[in-house]
Amino acid sequence: MALSEQARASERDRIAQMVLDLVKERGTEITHAGAINESGLTRGRFDQIFDDYDDLFDAVAQKWLHPHLLVMEEVLATHLPPQRKMYEFFARRFAISRERFREDPEFFTILCEMGAANMERVRSFVDLADHYQCELIAEAQAEGFFAGLEIDETLSLINQMVSDYTLPDALLYLGDRLSEQKLARIVDTIFIGLSGEAGSEAAGVNSLTLAN
Amino acid sequence: MALSEQARASERDRIAQMVLDLVKERGTEITHAGAINESGLTRGRFDQIFDDYDDLFDAVAQKWLHPHLLVMEEVLATHLPPQRKMYEFFARRFAISRERFREDPEFFTILCEMGAANMERVRSFVDLADHYQCELIAEAQAEGFFAGLEIDETLSLINQMVSDYTLPDALLYLGDRLSEQKLARIVDTIFIGLSGEAGSEAAGVNSLTLAN
Repeated sequence: MALSEQARASERDRIAQMVLDLVKERGTEITHAGAINESGLTRGRFDQIFDDYDDLFDAVAQKWLHPHLLVMEEVLATHLPPQRKMYEFFARRFAISRERFREDPEFFTILCEMGAANMERVRSFVDLADHYQCELIAEAQAEGFFAGLEIDETLSLINQMVSDYTLPDALLYLGDRLSEQKLARIVDTIFIGLSGEAGSEAAGVNSLTLAN
Repeated sequence: MALSEQARASERDRIAQMVLDLVKERGTEITHAGAINESGLTRGRFDQIFDDYDDLFDAVAQKWLHPHLLVMEEVLATHLPPQRKMYEFFARRFAISRERFREDPEFFTILCEMGAANMERVRSFVDLADHYQCELIAEAQAEGFFAGLEIDETLSLINQMVSDYTLPDALLYLGDRLSEQKLARIVDTIFIGLSGEAGSEAAGVNSLTLAN
């Protein structure tokens, strides 16, 4: 019997949550066979819900990252000044990750490992976050920030400068050395200092061949 | 028979290099027993050279990080302007890591995993790099940069903003998205934008309780 779209979506959600609960309870990754077994479904029915393990992993990642998605959209809808908006864009996600890390460091570590081992699988999430961030950059550029830089270039530079606040693994080795206060200082530094029209002191002129 | 200090140092160096060669050749970490076995020494003699596995690991890490140490000291001895000096301090180490990564990505990945799993064991190296960087920060402050910030605060903020260029793991997932050109832009951004006397736009005043 074919599943209705609604029943399929609801089962995907239920099983994704079940996998997260099992990872937390058992302290280890859950295999495809393990998930089928625990789902209470036949193999045939399970395969109607998830094409394969990658598809199951996607659903689990989406479930886990859903709160991040909500706060990004929340920030995008505000009318804050560009610095505040950029700060909130990173700070709210960081606060979610830190809360989860503090609540259950072991569970958080395993999810980091699952994510790190499957970076390409959460690519769609990373792409969406980048897309939203480009909107913030465009708004800031309209107010004169990041002059002389392409949006993609700005995106890459900002992502590199705040990566300790977006990569969950950083919490594992930096812990309390990460703070909202420092993140705010970094965002201010970016808004004051990042442009294509000022500053080429660092690279000098003689001793470097610049890569493109 | 007791070893002379010189003979002990030379054996430490030889065995550290041997372990690196074995990791490269076999594509896997080398155990304490494996290192003893391959060293051609008796257990008793081996224990005169390395107190325990941690001590052996330290010697291997020191051997691997020695080129990094040399370029840091090289940069410290120059009389470049502070921006150039800070840039070179990070860029030369980054160039070593990238070269190693490109030459043998698998070997590099295993060494990252060994380092990541043993972060505290390379702590002495991280502390020394921080110590050198504090000298650069003090020199820059003498020329008016990073006004109103403590050295330790500045150190932590800069480390966070350039971490993609100092943590070797970043090469594994960012690859060619890391470049000297971007690093130079980041260092310029830091010198222009980072101070305690300008910019508190990001944090705002109402919606945040600042830590610390």
